[in-house]
Amino acid sequence: MAAASAIAKTFHFGPIIIPLSQTFLVTKLSYALVNLKPIRPGHVLVAPRRKTLRFNDLTQEEVTDLFLQGQRVSKVIEKLFKAEGLTLCIQDGPKAGQTVPHVHLHVIPRHQGDFPNNDDIYSVLEGNVNPAPHIDNDQINPRSNEEMAAEAVLLRSELGHWNQGGD
Amino acid sequence: MAAASAIAKTFHFGPIIIPLSQTFLVTKLSYALVNLKPIRPGHVLVAPRRKTLRFNDLTQEEVTDLFLQGQRVSKVIEKLFKAEGLTLCIQDGPKAGQTVPHVHLHVIPRHQGDFPNNDDIYSVLEGNVNPAPHIDNDQINPRSNEEMAAEAVLLRSELGHWNQGGD
Repeated sequence: MAAASAIAKTFHFGPIIIPLSQTFLVTKLSYALVNLKPIRPGHVLVAPRRKTLRFNDLTQEEVTDLFLQGQRVSKVIEKLFKAEGLTLCIQDGPKAGQTVPHVHLHVIPRHQGDFPNNDDIYSVLEGNVNPAPHIDNDQINPRSNEEMAAEAVLLRSELGHWNQGGD
Repeated sequence: MAAASAIAKTFHFGPIIIPLSQTFLVTKLSYALVNLKPIRPGHVLVAPRRKTLRFNDLTQEEVTDLFLQGQRVSKVIEKLFKAEGLTLCIQDGPKAGQTVPHVHLHVIPRHQGDFPNNDDIYSVLEGNVNPAPHIDNDQINPRSNEEMAAEAVLLRSELGHWNQGGD
């Protein structure tokens, strides 16, 4: 059950393999990744490195690290995307709307008027867009590897600045 | 900035004073409280004891304790309310739908079919019910002090069992 090495080249996200190029923060227990289909610019994810379905399955060390890294990510996302607020959410289990079977914290920058109704964000998060219900989230085009890698580089750079700031 | 004593009789929740009787878990840095207007049975909150508006304003110690206690609460809520999943959410700032100006984690048990569409829960969470939009959440009747206190007693008792279990 030892965490994978910090120099791993890929990461588990449920059945999906995430390349290092799509990550921007890696610790022994957690990693942060950019999103194939962000519902807003700056919508990123933080996950435990161990493939774990439910929040309650995480160890205390994993919970602690997940949210300490979640806060580091939140600070960077809020700054870079000039957010006026953040939606922080775990859809814990399929009955709660979880689509990838691996615990993950959504960090989503919010702005005045970003959705017609403030709570439409959750409808979109669960695969409905615009916000007409029951429209498949295939309507959000997946981003290219290049676009995701470029965003990860930007976020890593910004986190570097945070580190230098004594965070 | 020292945390209030663990034997405090009341707790700050933004401008609201929460009596001890409506809490069911208290640590030096965090507390858990039952809900005046739960959107589902077992919808409870976990908050830092220090009156703090935004997630990013919390210290690392506060983040750590908030989510470790959040996991203890999640385990109890899942068991007691026979949940099939949990919605775990922080509406971080008014632009993200936060209504009480104090960081708080929603823990909401989920069940198959509990809302007509899975994501209707967020519409209700933000004050819309049934799930027609824009209906004032005054339509959720506030619970009596007695009802809230009884639920807190039940949850405290259940957490006691967890404590005895070596948690």
